[in-house]
Amino acid sequence: MIYFRSDYSQGAHPKVMEALAATNFEHTDGYAIDRHCEHAAEMIKALIGRPDASVHMMIGGTPCNVTVIAAALRPYETVIAARSGHCYFHETGGVEATGHRVTTVEPFDGKVTPEGIDFAMSEFQDEHTPKPAMVYVSQPTEIGTIYSKAELGALRAKCDEYGLMLYLDGARLAAALTCGANDLTIGDIANLTDAFYIGGTKCGALFGEALVILNPKIDDHFRWMIKRQGGMLAKGRLIGVQFEALFEGGEDSLYFKIGRSENEAADRIRSALTDLGIKFLGSSPTNQIFPILPAKVVKELESDFFFYEWAPEQDGMIPVRLVTGWGTTEDDVEALITRIKELI
Amino acid sequence: MIYFRSDYSQGAHPKVMEALAATNFEHTDGYAIDRHCEHAAEMIKALIGRPDASVHMMIGGTPCNVTVIAAALRPYETVIAARSGHCYFHETGGVEATGHRVTTVEPFDGKVTPEGIDFAMSEFQDEHTPKPAMVYVSQPTEIGTIYSKAELGALRAKCDEYGLMLYLDGARLAAALTCGANDLTIGDIANLTDAFYIGGTKCGALFGEALVILNPKIDDHFRWMIKRQGGMLAKGRLIGVQFEALFEGGEDSLYFKIGRSENEAADRIRSALTDLGIKFLGSSPTNQIFPILPAKVVKELESDFFFYEWAPEQDGMIPVRLVTGWGTTEDDVEALITRIKELI
Amino acid sequence: MIYFRSDYSQGAHPKVMEALAATNFEHTDGYAIDRHCEHAAEMIKALIGRPDASVHMMIGGTPCNVTVIAAALRPYETVIAARSGHCYFHETGGVEATGHRVTTVEPFDGKVTPEGIDFAMSEFQDEHTPKPAMVYVSQPTEIGTIYSKAELGALRAKCDEYGLMLYLDGARLAAALTCGANDLTIGDIANLTDAFYIGGTKCGALFGEALVILNPKIDDHFRWMIKRQGGMLAKGRLIGVQFEALFEGGEDSLYFKIGRSENEAADRIRSALTDLGIKFLGSSPTNQIFPILPAKVVKELESDFFFYEWAPEQDGMIPVRLVTGWGTTEDDVEALITRIKELI
Amino acid sequence: MIYFRSDYSQGAHPKVMEALAATNFEHTDGYAIDRHCEHAAEMIKALIGRPDASVHMMIGGTPCNVTVIAAALRPYETVIAARSGHCYFHETGGVEATGHRVTTVEPFDGKVTPEGIDFAMSEFQDEHTPKPAMVYVSQPTEIGTIYSKAELGALRAKCDEYGLMLYLDGARLAAALTCGANDLTIGDIANLTDAFYIGGTKCGALFGEALVILNPKIDDHFRWMIKRQGGMLAKGRLIGVQFEALFEGGEDSLYFKIGRSENEAADRIRSALTDLGIKFLGSSPTNQIFPILPAKVVKELESDFFFYEWAPEQDGMIPVRLVTGWGTTEDDVEALITRIKELI
Repeated sequence: MIYFRSDYSQGAHPKVMEALAATNFEHTDGYAIDRHCEHAAEMIKALIGRPDASVHMMIGGTPCNVTVIAAALRPYETVIAARSGHCYFHETGGVEATGHRVTTVEPFDGKVTPEGIDFAMSEFQDEHTPKPAMVYVSQPTEIGTIYSKAELGALRAKCDEYGLMLYLDGARLAAALTCGANDLTIGDIANLTDAFYIGGTKCGALFGEALVILNPKIDDHFRWMIKRQGGMLAKGRLIGVQFEALFEGGEDSLYFKIGRSENEAADRIRSALTDLGIKFLGSSPTNQIFPILPAKVVKELESDFFFYEWAPEQDGMIPVRLVTGWGTTEDDVEALITRIKELI
Repeated sequence: MIYFRSDYSQGAHPKVMEALAATNFEHTDGYAIDRHCEHAAEMIKALIGRPDASVHMMIGGTPCNVTVIAAALRPYETVIAARSGHCYFHETGGVEATGHRVTTVEPFDGKVTPEGIDFAMSEFQDEHTPKPAMVYVSQPTEIGTIYSKAELGALRAKCDEYGLMLYLDGARLAAALTCGANDLTIGDIANLTDAFYIGGTKCGALFGEALVILNPKIDDHFRWMIKRQGGMLAKGRLIGVQFEALFEGGEDSLYFKIGRSENEAADRIRSALTDLGIKFLGSSPTNQIFPILPAKVVKELESDFFFYEWAPEQDGMIPVRLVTGWGTTEDDVEALITRIKELI
Repeated sequence: MIYFRSDYSQGAHPKVMEALAATNFEHTDGYAIDRHCEHAAEMIKALIGRPDASVHMMIGGTPCNVTVIAAALRPYETVIAARSGHCYFHETGGVEATGHRVTTVEPFDGKVTPEGIDFAMSEFQDEHTPKPAMVYVSQPTEIGTIYSKAELGALRAKCDEYGLMLYLDGARLAAALTCGANDLTIGDIANLTDAFYIGGTKCGALFGEALVILNPKIDDHFRWMIKRQGGMLAKGRLIGVQFEALFEGGEDSLYFKIGRSENEAADRIRSALTDLGIKFLGSSPTNQIFPILPAKVVKELESDFFFYEWAPEQDGMIPVRLVTGWGTTEDDVEALITRIKELI
Repeated sequence: MIYFRSDYSQGAHPKVMEALAATNFEHTDGYAIDRHCEHAAEMIKALIGRPDASVHMMIGGTPCNVTVIAAALRPYETVIAARSGHCYFHETGGVEATGHRVTTVEPFDGKVTPEGIDFAMSEFQDEHTPKPAMVYVSQPTEIGTIYSKAELGALRAKCDEYGLMLYLDGARLAAALTCGANDLTIGDIANLTDAFYIGGTKCGALFGEALVILNPKIDDHFRWMIKRQGGMLAKGRLIGVQFEALFEGGEDSLYFKIGRSENEAADRIRSALTDLGIKFLGSSPTNQIFPILPAKVVKELESDFFFYEWAPEQDGMIPVRLVTGWGTTEDDVEALITRIKELI
């Protein structure tokens, strides 16, 4: 069985595992206050050119999202997100569990739009309606699409118009930053948002995300918030060690290499399927692609390949999700393309 | 610097690291639904003799505590705990963040007593007072003491008298089960509680705890609760892999060996210090000991050894906490004892 | 200034005030456990033909909604409501404050539809998505429209298909039950829902709503829930006394008389405006009507009449909300109609 | 049956009822934004000499407490209260329902002490422990005792030392301000606290409390908080009308008259019982007294008088709570004293 199921179906990239092994016998203090976490934070601040940033080593993506939102909002405030956004759609109400609404807007190609923000703000009237205070986006989105620099800038401008914070979930940020269609640097993202996180889990780490807070208001007693929300890791240095391994070398580091290799594998599949006349859901240029295949082909493929059916069959067709990861090999990609060609 | 700071200052026991390396390139589905998590769960169910148990691979101790409590209680219900209990004292209000009170009782030698439960229940009167529904204990307690079989049985009986659930936090369960004073088997604990967890983080894992739910009421949609509370790990199999390594061999497994080695190191220190006439806070027979040392000795020791001062200086004396871990060596222990002898 | 602003702009109907005055010097126990509350509950149970119902005297509509929802749902569960529904749109996130999502669906003529429920359920997939457990509707809706018996029956059937509870907010239930288009009895509503409330505030009481719980699961320790959510009134008997006054005489009681008089006033306005060729938002047959008037007319009217502009001006027209109350007089209605005729 | 059960067993003082009747047919806008609420607020600001205060008309005491605490605290913060304090002991976990701990301290004569605050702060250490941010007291306390000016000043100084806010629950403030032992003016209270409320329910109103916020931080979007917490009354003017009636005349107003009459009745009972050699729980100088009576006397008294047994029988004695209200008559008091004299 060959996996195109997700970019977290294997363990860690070998270089990350090496770093964990090399530091395994060191003693450090717990809870992500140690030399590795500090060093990783410094590397990230240098990379984004923001020495004023506050960087926290987080245990996972949902804890990032929920903790940032709970820290940033007053009780009567809400966060605006696409109805398809991860913090709304795939976190089992984690935001609401902290007492806050996710005010949903309809996405366009997976993305929040300035018009969506206008709509959400039009619903806010007075003390009978909760007040949006933040916009949540992910880069890439749930369907792999990315915001251009102009699009993210337009969201920033719209947020400023209404006094909203802008938070970016970068679970797969490596794939976004290294895909052909991208025109945003990680420094741009730091400058356009109030906070964002750099995902490790889906880029070769065992687990762990690096949260970057640019707006000091969000950073207030943030370590208290991490602990309260259950996201503080005893052996916190493990996250620091992994991010050291990922970002050693800055823009030439493993982090960007993994992003590129994921995208290259996806590009080959995308290109081959396009040549076959296959259509896709959304315009993803990153490592998640959503070809719409004949149901019969899908069922045959499932004998040898493991992936998600993304939506129910309609008119004999099923959109599927194919994801490439750090460990996806050329052989995996060839096998998939060959098999689809046979079946079409 | 030699660490007696905590049992989570190093990475994982070499055998745990080996298991992670050996399985690193496998592909599995995410979120702790995979063969390793299933196998580890089966091993644990066999060990405790409870095939009916539900075992969940959890990311950490606080997520265990908070998720169990939030899953078990109705909104108007509370959990009774010692004022010194971890879920009250060291989780930054994580339980209250889910809307529930921790009803505190005064501990005796770190432990909840039947009289404490009587007291808490005496405060519950009618619809103006929240209703206790669960008792939280940890084995060992925050000060390393342990419940005997008779004591845990008495708590169970008292819980039954009031219709309360009993939940046991086993962050350091290995140390409790393998210390000289212990008369409880892990099977006894399963039979006396509604849920408990077997701590991995403080017993040689990188992270991870195995939560064992015996009362089906608590298990209702528990995976929804894990996700909602932010505790679901994408590469969930990592926890399963580590628990396979820890429990391979059942009662002769690494888990119990680590517990024994931690206790042996602590026993040697305890014994040597007792011989020097040093007194201790509490009666801990496990791998955390709390000698009360002259302030001057403490300050000298701190040049070479890293540990917590447990309470402020009083009458020239300071209680300190010394913790042994899976990586504590005989040399570490010797060095500590020798240095204290010199200083006393 | 003549008020068509709301049905709660005046105090209580004179007969309600009389009842409060007549019982003012009585001593009773507090918190809605007294002979008046008990008697009012018995009257309501008789009226709806459900001696098994549990009736609670509540302080207001939002406390009803929030307390019922918080009592009924498990933490990982949500309530489905129209995006325009009161519990979503006009309660400042009160539901989310208890940790639960309101899963919104698009309304049709203000109403939740079976297709809307299908849509909401299609979003629920597994432990990564919160689970809808209840449907919230109001009768009439936020725009005064009503569910027919067939429509409410279809919602009940759809709820049963998915195992959902059905809760009905009856803030203006009197207006719904007594309007010309209605074919539902209050007994039908009791038989089709798991809980509903009979609104007093908007039907001649100073305040207070009678919550009727038919599903015992929701009623678990409900008084604890009322107190926890801040909705327990010390002099709780006041609500009982008012409902005694409202329901004395059963189907001929003041409650239904007020409903009818509110509707008659609205009918006269609706009819006169329709004759003038004025169009309306929605198809409300109850005491809230939403004529779409030329902006210039609206501005002129505002000199003498107090009402809400319901939406921003568009193409020179403004939809306004006109509401009639227990105290709306024939003269008020005549004055309004006359003035609009002059202005059109 | 003669009631010494509570000060809320009857309806409203006749002058309050008159005010409600006199304004009943007026039309006003809803939600406590109207001329009566504004006027009542102005009267209160003048009385306390703080034109900068923000005054909110609240529906009840628990909504006051919970809303103030939820508005004032950041998510990781707690409120310190006596274990016997109302917000901890008699509000069914309403504070915890908003995600915050009540950090309890042992009371002395029902009161929070500076030493208690020191103790609570000693438990706060770092990001693993929630951070106290406010102290909750009530004047009088749950057992009727009062803080002297020196005592409240000492609490204020202690709060300032730690950067804590001080909030005072004045459910029975009239009784405190008018009792013989009091040396605090209502202006002093305004100057020593960050917020306090003036209780109406227990001083002759049907319901309603006037919340006075002195610290602008607490007042941030406070009406959003009121609505979110379910405490916003549609016919909000009713509270304003009642407080106008209570405070007409300032320091000679009905509010203080009722306080005095309640205390005088209590004083007569206290004095008569003291003459009989009866002892009391606590040193209450206000309208709640707690004589410790022989169990047999208590049981006999219960044939004719309605009151609470405050604690279980011990050594043949039962402490009871006797409360006088605005409607307590001289005859009621005489009857009680006479009967006790007969029984002793």
